[in-house]
Amino acid sequence: MRIAIPKETHPGENRVPVIPETVKKLCLLGAEVVIEPGMGTGSGFSDEHYLDAGASIQPDRNKLFAEAEVLLRLRKPTLEEVPMIPSGCVHISYLDPFNEHELVRALQQQGVTAISMEMIPRTTRSQKMDALSSQANLAGYVTVLLAANHLPSILPMMMTPAGTLKPAKVFILGAGVAGLQAIATAKRLGAKVTAFDTRPVVAEQVQSLGATFLEIDLGDTGETAGGYATELTPEQIEKQRQAQKDVIAQSDVVITTAQVFGRKPPVLVTRDMVEGMQPGSVIVDMAAETGGNVEGSVPGETVEVNGVKIIGQANLPNNVCRDASKMYSSNLFNLVEDVWDKESKRFVVDFEHDILPGCIITHGGEVTNATIKNILEGGN
Amino acid sequence: MRIAIPKETHPGENRVPVIPETVKKLCLLGAEVVIEPGMGTGSGFSDEHYLDAGASIQPDRNKLFAEAEVLLRLRKPTLEEVPMIPSGCVHISYLDPFNEHELVRALQQQGVTAISMEMIPRTTRSQKMDALSSQANLAGYVTVLLAANHLPSILPMMMTPAGTLKPAKVFILGAGVAGLQAIATAKRLGAKVTAFDTRPVVAEQVQSLGATFLEIDLGDTGETAGGYATELTPEQIEKQRQAQKDVIAQSDVVITTAQVFGRKPPVLVTRDMVEGMQPGSVIVDMAAETGGNVEGSVPGETVEVNGVKIIGQANLPNNVCRDASKMYSSNLFNLVEDVWDKESKRFVVDFEHDILPGCIITHGGEVTNATIKNILEGGN
Repeated sequence: MRIAIPKETHPGENRVPVIPETVKKLCLLGAEVVIEPGMGTGSGFSDEHYLDAGASIQPDRNKLFAEAEVLLRLRKPTLEEVPMIPSGCVHISYLDPFNEHELVRALQQQGVTAISMEMIPRTTRSQKMDALSSQANLAGYVTVLLAANHLPSILPMMMTPAGTLKPAKVFILGAGVAGLQAIATAKRLGAKVTAFDTRPVVAEQVQSLGATFLEIDLGDTGETAGGYATELTPEQIEKQRQAQKDVIAQSDVVITTAQVFGRKPPVLVTRDMVEGMQPGSVIVDMAAETGGNVEGSVPGETVEVNGVKIIGQANLPNNVCRDASKMYSSNLFNLVEDVWDKESKRFVVDFEHDILPGCIITHGGEVTNATIKNILEGGN
Repeated sequence: MRIAIPKETHPGENRVPVIPETVKKLCLLGAEVVIEPGMGTGSGFSDEHYLDAGASIQPDRNKLFAEAEVLLRLRKPTLEEVPMIPSGCVHISYLDPFNEHELVRALQQQGVTAISMEMIPRTTRSQKMDALSSQANLAGYVTVLLAANHLPSILPMMMTPAGTLKPAKVFILGAGVAGLQAIATAKRLGAKVTAFDTRPVVAEQVQSLGATFLEIDLGDTGETAGGYATELTPEQIEKQRQAQKDVIAQSDVVITTAQVFGRKPPVLVTRDMVEGMQPGSVIVDMAAETGGNVEGSVPGETVEVNGVKIIGQANLPNNVCRDASKMYSSNLFNLVEDVWDKESKRFVVDFEHDILPGCIITHGGEVTNATIKNILEGGN
């Protein structure tokens, strides 16, 4: 079965979908792996690395697509690329199906089996394929490094003959995968860390990392089966804002990681809270790209409001692209291996599989995912 | 006694010589403190902060200088500024007297009492005034953050469902104040750290921080009374280079902090060693500004050689300018307080003092420092 891996084309993207080590593993499964030249360059892997691992190289991108039975990618295809994908081909990538309606329709009409990495269910067995988590984990690490690099003071306490420098105060909003890694990294660097999450169940995890959990009584909150926070009511959001206001004013660093699956993230840090912080303080808004947790954050930019820096950089895992590529590549492989038929040496689109059907968006000319189908048909 | 504090004028310098808290302490000693407007801006201190602390403000820079009895500064004066300093005034700042011969002559002829912060002797009692150490300490922290921000992988080990990421390998050359802090910071972030120093005496300190000390038998080496490494012979340097070559080739990050007091730093990492590293690796050359420990490093720039990034950024403490200002300000205050006469409420230029004479370069129209005098007269 021919697995093709084109080069990523998104500007600034240095992550690559598959690393040489994974190519080796795919070949061991019996797959034929073909890559586009320079596919691994962004993360420091040369064509020679891939050739050594057993891949062959196809310099003609159109041919690469035309002859593919499975396409392994990182970012969603562009609309222009969809006609290049053969009907019946399995296309695995991020897809953003909640928002990319036109793209989903195009993939459906093209007869592509489009698998969305975002839709891997969050179960124990599928963790190994969960790219959202693997990338969020690295993003959490990056947020703290970015903050530390922009802060005019150090994170750890330092006792010196010239006096003692107090540890920086870091407040982390949202203690999901990214938030927990941000907490761990800030703690490693010696900061005094406080965190909040609307899911009371994570308080213990926060505390086990050595951070303080900010207690706010929001009444009834909870989490989805997938482990995401459920959306708050406007009253609950207001209550949270008020309760965290003082903590934010006293913080040197605020990192916001609040996401609600499939929806616009909530604005948790308002303009007056930003203005309440000391000049020189730093906010990292991990949600900037999708709407922002922080009022005034600009996607892809660092802006200054009253001397407070707000970092809205998108694609944080890209900062540690090599490790991010390793993790994503591993996620892809684990998915492929899990549905691979060892007899026929083929990727099997099996709608009886426990994980696969949930992340197939289109197949055989249909939108097979019920949630996405509902949205496309005007539901919500 | 009137203490004047002008604004720093060096491009990009955000550290400030004196913070408001120190102004308060100077006023308590009985000093009259006058600052130039905007003196603290770089590190986030407003004129109001200084007014509240007891300072007054003199917007006329010429007048500020003309009426000063003591000038407290961070960077050395420019040659053009020397005629602005009143004869008999005490001018305390970095001075770089080993290299700034013309400046030292000008200060001598102007009749200034020029005190060089670099020349504070490294004794137990003078630690509190030692700006080289306080700034090197912060610089060591900054080197690791810079490296981590440029590295395409993370520093800590991470065990995830998608696989395990190994800890980054960090090699630190020179385990003085900066090197030790770099080791501590890299260890905090979870890296696997190896270090080397020509002074065998620091092996224990390196190991107590959890790092591996690279054993290289260089024969006779040692340190000065001030704790600096003594200069190696060309043969010893070559031996060190060979012995560290393999470690460098296997390292993700190399940080060089080797300084020899008053001399050009040694080149420890040669071009072939840089080329032996994996693409994506990062080198931070802390000595780039004064000549460089790394072949190919460029002062103030990040260059790429064979995919290896070499960071030659100057003035690393400036990255954490607020804490650097706090430390420097505290160093200045500790020096002033130590020689302050409480009766007359004056800074006393006392050549019987145990610390002061060593760091006075010029006084009463003479070059009083024997080492510097010798250099100026053509010695070495």
